[in-house]
Amino acid sequence: MNAHAPGYRTFGPSDACDYLRHLGLFTANEPLECDEIGDGNLNLVFRVRGAGKSLIVKQALPYAKVVGENWPLSLDRARIEGEALLEAAKVVPAHVPKVHQLDPVLALTVMEDLSHLTIGRAALIQGRYLPLLGGHIGDYLARTLYATSHFALTPREAKALAARFVNPDLCNITEDLVFIDPYFDRPSNDFPEALRPTLERHWADQALKREVAELTRLFLCQGEALIHGDLHTGSLFVSESDTRVIDPEFAYYGPMAFDIGAFWANLILSSLSHRGHGLENEARRAYRHFLYDTLETSWRHFERGMREQLAAGSVDPFAKVEGYFDAQLERWFSESIGFAGCKAFRRIVGLAHVADIESIQDPAIRLEVKEDALELAANLIKRRGEFAGVEALRAYLESAIDDRQGDNR
Amino acid sequence: MNAHAPGYRTFGPSDACDYLRHLGLFTANEPLECDEIGDGNLNLVFRVRGAGKSLIVKQALPYAKVVGENWPLSLDRARIEGEALLEAAKVVPAHVPKVHQLDPVLALTVMEDLSHLTIGRAALIQGRYLPLLGGHIGDYLARTLYATSHFALTPREAKALAARFVNPDLCNITEDLVFIDPYFDRPSNDFPEALRPTLERHWADQALKREVAELTRLFLCQGEALIHGDLHTGSLFVSESDTRVIDPEFAYYGPMAFDIGAFWANLILSSLSHRGHGLENEARRAYRHFLYDTLETSWRHFERGMREQLAAGSVDPFAKVEGYFDAQLERWFSESIGFAGCKAFRRIVGLAHVADIESIQDPAIRLEVKEDALELAANLIKRRGEFAGVEALRAYLESAIDDRQGDNR
Repeated sequence: MNAHAPGYRTFGPSDACDYLRHLGLFTANEPLECDEIGDGNLNLVFRVRGAGKSLIVKQALPYAKVVGENWPLSLDRARIEGEALLEAAKVVPAHVPKVHQLDPVLALTVMEDLSHLTIGRAALIQGRYLPLLGGHIGDYLARTLYATSHFALTPREAKALAARFVNPDLCNITEDLVFIDPYFDRPSNDFPEALRPTLERHWADQALKREVAELTRLFLCQGEALIHGDLHTGSLFVSESDTRVIDPEFAYYGPMAFDIGAFWANLILSSLSHRGHGLENEARRAYRHFLYDTLETSWRHFERGMREQLAAGSVDPFAKVEGYFDAQLERWFSESIGFAGCKAFRRIVGLAHVADIESIQDPAIRLEVKEDALELAANLIKRRGEFAGVEALRAYLESAIDDRQGDNR
Repeated sequence: MNAHAPGYRTFGPSDACDYLRHLGLFTANEPLECDEIGDGNLNLVFRVRGAGKSLIVKQALPYAKVVGENWPLSLDRARIEGEALLEAAKVVPAHVPKVHQLDPVLALTVMEDLSHLTIGRAALIQGRYLPLLGGHIGDYLARTLYATSHFALTPREAKALAARFVNPDLCNITEDLVFIDPYFDRPSNDFPEALRPTLERHWADQALKREVAELTRLFLCQGEALIHGDLHTGSLFVSESDTRVIDPEFAYYGPMAFDIGAFWANLILSSLSHRGHGLENEARRAYRHFLYDTLETSWRHFERGMREQLAAGSVDPFAKVEGYFDAQLERWFSESIGFAGCKAFRRIVGLAHVADIESIQDPAIRLEVKEDALELAANLIKRRGEFAGVEALRAYLESAIDDRQGDNR
C-alpha cells in the first residue's frame, strides 16, 4: 500500500495530531482529540480538536473501495484537490474551506473544519430551506469558471493551468460510471430487476445514446475551464447562511456546464425523492418549489456573475463582439441541461446512487421515483437545446415532476 | 543564443556532416557535400550528400525572425515536430519523410531528403497537375486524425499523448496571426492601403467576428486529435505520384478540422490566384477545376478513411450509435469550411502572405484577387453551416470564383 509513492504512509489518529503539532497549528503540549470521520472508501478524514479550534486532515488512500475491489487510484488526486481548493479560494474564499497545508508526498490536505455545517444532500433530504444556496452556488460557478477560462486567462496561462490538472484516473471514473456504463448492460451497473424493462427501452433509444455520445465527447475534448468535476450536493457543506464547496479531487480542464449540470441533477433528484419522504402534500409541493427556485437562482447568479466579470474586462479580444457572449451563455445553458440529465441517469442505474432516493422506505414508491427520474433524465439529455431559458426549463420541471407527485397542486 | 538550453549550439555545415558521421549514417571517410537550404527564419536546414544518398538535418533556432525582431521561440518545437512525424509515420509512412534521428538537446531532426520533390505551393503556382494530391491528403488526414482521436485511443492514452504535445509558443503564433490580428487594425497586419476600405467593412461585420470568435474558441478548447497545425501547401512536398507532409512543428491536440481547413484555404487561394498568372482562359478554367477536384477528393478520402477505420473498430463504445458518426462528419465538414475561411483571410491581411497571390505581377489584378479572397473567406466563415455536402461547397466555390475570373466559361 505504501509502495505507491516514496514517503507516503497512511496516517492513524496520532499521526494526524503529531503532524499538526509539527506544523505549529497546535502547540506541543495542547491536549488534542482526534476522530477518523471519513467514509473510508477513498480517503482518511481526521478531525483534530484542540483547546480553541479544530482542523481537518484529509489523506488520500491509494485505492477506491467504492469503485471496485482494490481499484488503484492515483495519490496525485490529493494534490489536485488541494490545488483546486486554492484556485477557488482566489476568487470565492467565502465558498470553500480554508486550506492550511498541502502535502503532496503524504497526499494530504489540512483544512478548516466545517463540522458546524451540514452536508447539502442531508439537508435536502431533511427538507431544510436554504435560501442562499442557489445564489451561492451560482456565484461560485461564475467566479471559478470565468477565472480559469479563456475570458480571464491568456492561452499560455490556461495551458499551464490545464497541465497542472491533468487527472486521468479520476476522469476515467466519470467517463465509465457517468457516461458509458449506465447506457449499456454492464456489470458495474446497479439497479433493481424491476427497472430492467424501462432500462432496455432507454438502452435501445438511439437518439438518447447519440446525445449522450455528444456530451461524452464534450467531457473528453472540451477544455474550457478548471471545473470541480463532481459538484453534487454531497460535495457541499451548507447552512441557512453559509455554503462551502468541498472535495474537488475530480478537478480538470473540462466543460464548464458539467459543474452546473451536476448541481442541477441533484436538485432534480431531490425534488423527485420527496414523494417518498415524510412531508405532507402542501409542504412537499412548497419544498419542490424551493428546489426549482434554487436551480433557477443558481443560473441567474451564474449568468449575472459571468456578465459582470466580462464587463469588468477580458483578455479575449472577441469577448465583447456583438452576440458572442450571449451565444456562449446559450451553449452553457443547453449543455448544463444535458449534463444534468447524464448525472441524474447514472444515479439511478450506475454504481453510485443517492441517499435522497435510496432512503425512500416504500419499495413501490422508490421504484416509481426511479422510473420517473430516468424518463426525466432522458428527456433533458435529448431536448436540452429546446429550452428558451431558465423559466422554460423550470416550467418543464414543474410540470414533469408535479404531475407525478400525486399531491394537491 | 545558446543559453536557451544546456548543450544546444547552432550547427554549421561541418557540424552537420560530423553529426551524421558520428551517427554512422555516413562512413568516417566518405566525402560529404553540405548546403544550408533553409529560409533562415525559424530553422537551419542542411542537406548532406554522400556517395550513395543524401539526408536532411533540420535544426530549430531559438527565435523567429519571420514573426518579429528576435521573437524568442521554444526549441521544444523541434522535439514536437520530430515526434509528430514519428506519430504520423505509424499510420501514413508513405506520406511523411522518414525520420532517422531526433535530438531534443540540439533541437534537431535527421530525416529523408525529399529534394527530388517540389514544394506543393510552387507546383500549384506553376499550374502543375497533381492527380493524386487530394486523395493522398485525404488519406493522410483520415489516418493521422483518427489514430489520435477518442475513436482510437482511450481517454488515458489521449491525455498522455496530449501532454507530450502541449505547444504554447507555436499555438500562440496561430492564435495571434490567424485568429485575432487579421480581424482588428493591428500593427502586425500587412496589407496594401487600397484594401483598407474593404477591411474596415469586414472589421465592422459583427456576424463575421462572432463566427471567428467561435472558431477561435474551438482552436483554444477543442482537443480532439493530434493535428499538424500548419497544413498549408508550403508544408507539402509533391510530385505527380508522391505527397509528403512536412514541418509539423505547430502540432498539438486541437480540432481536427483545422488541418482540413488549412489545406482547403490554400487550394482556394491558388484557384483565385491563377487569374494573375500565365495560363490562358481555357487552361486557367481547367486548372481551377483541378483544384476544386482536389478539394472534393480530399474530403471524400477523408470521409471514406474515417468510416473504414470506424468499421474496423473503435475503443469508443458510442462510436457506432446510429447517426453519431454522421453527426461528427457533418461537424468536421462545417468546421473545416470555417477554418478554411480563417486561413484564407489571414493570408491576405495578416503577417504571412502566400506567394500564389503575392507573385501576381499586375497590381490591379493582385488587389482584386485580394478583395475577392477576403469576400470569399468571410462568406465561408459565416456560412460554414449552410453547405449540405462537398458538392454544395464545390458548386459554391465554382460559382463564387469563376464569376470573378473574367475567362470564357
